[in-house]
Amino acid sequence: MHFTSEQRFDDGVLEREFTLGEIPGILWTPGSASGSAPAPLILIGHPGGLHTMYPRLVGRARHSAADGFAAATIELPGSGDRPRSAAAEQARADLRRAVEAGEPVSDEIVDRLVLPLVDKAVPEWQAALDALLALPEIGGPVGYSGGVISIGVRLARVEPRISAAVLFAGSYVPRAMFEEARQVTIPLHVLLQWDDEGNDRQAALDLFDAFGSKEKTLNANLGGHTGVPQFAGDAAAQFLTRHLR
Amino acid sequence: MHFTSEQRFDDGVLEREFTLGEIPGILWTPGSASGSAPAPLILIGHPGGLHTMYPRLVGRARHSAADGFAAATIELPGSGDRPRSAAAEQARADLRRAVEAGEPVSDEIVDRLVLPLVDKAVPEWQAALDALLALPEIGGPVGYSGGVISIGVRLARVEPRISAAVLFAGSYVPRAMFEEARQVTIPLHVLLQWDDEGNDRQAALDLFDAFGSKEKTLNANLGGHTGVPQFAGDAAAQFLTRHLR
Repeated sequence: MHFTSEQRFDDGVLEREFTLGEIPGILWTPGSASGSAPAPLILIGHPGGLHTMYPRLVGRARHSAADGFAAATIELPGSGDRPRSAAAEQARADLRRAVEAGEPVSDEIVDRLVLPLVDKAVPEWQAALDALLALPEIGGPVGYSGGVISIGVRLARVEPRISAAVLFAGSYVPRAMFEEARQVTIPLHVLLQWDDEGNDRQAALDLFDAFGSKEKTLNANLGGHTGVPQFAGDAAAQFLTRHLR
Repeated sequence: MHFTSEQRFDDGVLEREFTLGEIPGILWTPGSASGSAPAPLILIGHPGGLHTMYPRLVGRARHSAADGFAAATIELPGSGDRPRSAAAEQARADLRRAVEAGEPVSDEIVDRLVLPLVDKAVPEWQAALDALLALPEIGGPVGYSGGVISIGVRLARVEPRISAAVLFAGSYVPRAMFEEARQVTIPLHVLLQWDDEGNDRQAALDLFDAFGSKEKTLNANLGGHTGVPQFAGDAAAQFLTRHLR
């Protein structure tokens, strides 16, 4: 992990860009007196494209920092400045074509689009976690929040260092992920936008039903994909604070 | 409205039992310095039976009082010490028989059980509201929270003095209430227990979908009818605080 730039905001939060091998990422740590305890960490998920997503990511990170958390994110495979995958681009084009034609999106397209992304991304987030937890200013526990829900499901299932997760039910879910969901046992807070144009509401409800966790909350709100209300973001932050502090 | 008893708790909350005509009720007002502003009011719904429900009601009321709210409730028609309705008792027995036989509960039984209750209870809650708002220590705005969801839906639709409502999707809903739900426009926070034995989850989701409100949140949690987790109660209280203060 190599830090490539840093800036400090007027709320004291330190933002550092880094690379982990070929993968770019960003780390935010709360401003605090020297000698304070290592901060718990929130991994901030997103749909891909750190530059495009930056304004929303930095907002979430500074909100987390105000609650005493470090926050970090990395670029997804095939997004932002990272090399494209021809197969993923083809799957994305096929998805777009089906949606624009008003056709149902087939399981086959969803599998081609999402499963290779999950298989590639999850070990990268785990490698980032190794590097982040090696920093003296970061301790545990670790939460995961948002982004592509299938990545969150896989991480929640396979990564024992993640204690709680906020999942955003806003993207297509391969059938195979329902079986993985049954094996998830950590506390979950699932956000669903009730009128999300590009999301299958019934699949989201089925996925929520499938999770094996003893504590799981579905927080559904009126509005489209990008319209998550401020109070729903606050409720998700309270969930993480409850479990990570 | 006649007060029949009063006691003050060690947190300063004043509890007063009252009768409104033949209807018993309870009012809780926050302990505060004299001359403080009139408190906003939360009407506390319940499934009927003030004595049986008292421990939970007083807990919710004192929680509300700590947030600066007055809270009040009245007995439902045919519950507690109030005269039974033969038709309602018959409908309840028919419902129980269907559930115990593992049969689907027919719309006809639900209509017979719930619609007369709603028709009778809602004007009583409105009369209680008249009397409560005439007290100098109670101002507005007014919220409604919990209880038989069809009573909450009707009140939210017809009573303009109610500004926001927490609804508990935990009882059978007559088909006619879905049309009423479309006419509800106040902010709503709907609690659903995902594994509620005596509740139809799909009907609850359909009802949430039907509400005409621009702001509506579904907060669904793992567990049975009586297992609403503390953090979900806290989230409902935050919703009311956000809208009533």
